[in-house]
Amino acid sequence: KAVPRSVIELRCQCVGTHSKFIHPKFIHNVNLIPSGPHCKNVEVIATLTDGREVCLEPTAPWVKLIIKTILDK
Amino acid sequence: KAVPRSVIELRCQCVGTHSKFIHPKFIHNVNLIPSGPHCKNVEVIATLTDGREVCLEPTAPWVKLIIKTILDK
Repeated sequence: KAVPRSVIELRCQCVGTHSKFIHPKFIHNVNLIPSGPHCKNVEVIATLTDGREVCLEPTAPWVKLIIKTILDK
Repeated sequence: KAVPRSVIELRCQCVGTHSKFIHPKFIHNVNLIPSGPHCKNVEVIATLTDGREVCLEPTAPWVKLIIKTILDK
């Protein structure tokens, strides 16, 4: 999906979440989308270093840890 | 800046950070970019509900709180 970053999507972006651990070294960035009128789910979308985008489970401990690690570095 | 979301930028995105508190209701999403060869800084870019993008300070307590709030909702 190559939508411009500045476009605000009006629907959910994720149809499911990737359940396996992804090492932080393969994560280029993580996009957090709060729930809202556009989508009832909190969405966490990681862009990997190879350009792929994967949806992560916001409640998974390893996902929270990766976000904390990014912020604390 | 309307670069495709899937493009991986090879430089820092932020030239400075917005220092004032932004209420979560005005935040559409938050993008976390770890430091790396492309940029020595951790970057936190919020897209506001009006489409503007603002860079936030990753170490600011209110920024960490907003991220926690998004994940815990």
